[in-house]
Amino acid sequence: MGFMSFFLGEKKQTASVAKERLQLILAHERSGRNAGTPDYLPQLKAELIAVISKYVKVDPSAVLVEREQQDNLEVLAVKIELPDAR
Amino acid sequence: MGFMSFFLGEKKQTASVAKERLQLILAHERSGRNAGTPDYLPQLKAELIAVISKYVKVDPSAVLVEREQQDNLEVLAVKIELPDAR
Repeated sequence: MGFMSFFLGEKKQTASVAKERLQLILAHERSGRNAGTPDYLPQLKAELIAVISKYVKVDPSAVLVEREQQDNLEVLAVKIELPDAR
Repeated sequence: MGFMSFFLGEKKQTASVAKERLQLILAHERSGRNAGTPDYLPQLKAELIAVISKYVKVDPSAVLVEREQQDNLEVLAVKIELPDAR
């Protein structure tokens, strides 16, 4: 299943009100050799949100961050509900 | 299905060689009111890759970009294969 069908499925569940949303997903798959490298995802996430804020008005209270880790895979999901353009 | 199970499923398909990978997915769901706002995703994508390059060495030839659009949903996927840490 590709990304589009994944997000379309998600969209149907949250389709209550037609809001503008931006989702940023970071998936980091480590190989054994780099297992010891420092975890830069949290810092990277903060910088990526800062870049996004240059393009759209981001209300910090409308930013939802989810983080999951399993085996050598770490997934960071940032969901941003955007204000209606006036 | 959550993001983790989605990426774990993807991982199984590409599990040939244990490489370090970073995937950045941007999903932009427009509401009707903002349909006319300019498309900033391509420019945003370039800046996000630039930020990622501050954290990990990104070989431009190892960056795969996929873009899909359906209804008011646009998904941009950036797959980066990272060099082994020496």
